[in-house]
Amino acid sequence: MDDSTREIEHLVNLMAKLPGLGPRSARRAVLHLIKKRALVMTPLANALQNVAATARECVNCGNIGTQDRCDICANEKRATGQLCIVEDVADLWAMERGQAFGGRYHVLGGTLSALDAVGPEELRIPKLLERIRAEGITEVVLALNVTVDGQTTAHYIAEHLTHVSVTSLAQGVPIGGELDYLDDGTIQAAFKARKQF
Amino acid sequence: MDDSTREIEHLVNLMAKLPGLGPRSARRAVLHLIKKRALVMTPLANALQNVAATARECVNCGNIGTQDRCDICANEKRATGQLCIVEDVADLWAMERGQAFGGRYHVLGGTLSALDAVGPEELRIPKLLERIRAEGITEVVLALNVTVDGQTTAHYIAEHLTHVSVTSLAQGVPIGGELDYLDDGTIQAAFKARKQF
Ligand SMILES: [Zn+2]
Ligand SMILES: [Zn+2]
Repeated sequence: MDDSTREIEHLVNLMAKLPGLGPRSARRAVLHLIKKRALVMTPLANALQNVAATARECVNCGNIGTQDRCDICANEKRATGQLCIVEDVADLWAMERGQAFGGRYHVLGGTLSALDAVGPEELRIPKLLERIRAEGITEVVLALNVTVDGQTTAHYIAEHLTHVSVTSLAQGVPIGGELDYLDDGTIQAAFKARKQF
Repeated sequence: MDDSTREIEHLVNLMAKLPGLGPRSARRAVLHLIKKRALVMTPLANALQNVAATARECVNCGNIGTQDRCDICANEKRATGQLCIVEDVADLWAMERGQAFGGRYHVLGGTLSALDAVGPEELRIPKLLERIRAEGITEVVLALNVTVDGQTTAHYIAEHLTHVSVTSLAQGVPIGGELDYLDDGTIQAAFKARKQF
């Protein structure tokens, strides 16, 4: 086995570890990439290198960006007094695709879980309470997944908030459903029909 | 939208074009990579860059390697007089995983297809006839997919070969099945039970 075969095997093994890809689809993807070396493989390698070198978590909200503060936190137009709480960045992206919300986000980084020993300190919840005071937040929109852990977390947060209106996405989010699976229209409807929590 | 957001979107779009990944799994994969920047993303970028810079088709058999001749063609131990004909490199890899075959390969690069106007010249078939003379081949093993086009191609090749024994993978390959989907044991059984074509 020459160096290239080893290098290709190494690449297949790395690809196979990505969520959604197994060994077979990783092999297919690598052969596809090798066939399209100039058009796809090199641009993909460059894009990965760029993002790996520049991407970081926003110190304020947990979103991904290149600066200490992400583009949403840095955007003064989004200082609406509304703060949308999501579990992870994929959910923030889903909300943004819905284009229903013009305020800022707070990415928890997961849900409270007694089983996995995840408490408020692990979840950027102290930072949330700090932001609500510092940024003049008047409404907190809970956009957590409609799962047991998501709703436990929503209730925990709601109980610890005072002097702000707390709403939650309501209509359209199916029981057991996860935000990132919903189409944009469903997210829009759920946002518009948000109700007092 | 800052540069990073654009760069991340660009990366998601590139990933979404890989076979087996759609937009949603591409977003999940990119977030997973960003979380594991040092451990996974940078090594993946480097592996892609290495393979993109070095991978090329073997001029002899069509396999992927770093040299003009791949490691199998360059390996004198594999000059057994047996030549295994496969449609593409994924099938060659599947045969190698089966560990049943010790000779060399010839990768056609597809199948004959009247519909898609794929003739013998498009398929490395002239090179095959040249190799059979030059490499002292005594047995050609047809390991083509059991599809209409695969079997048409197998028959075409068998008709144009003289003075060599022509066998084909037989037992264990299901009708309509494709080699790359089979488990290693099935491939071994099919190879051992190969029959006169
Ligand atoms: Zn931010
Ligand atoms: Zn070769």
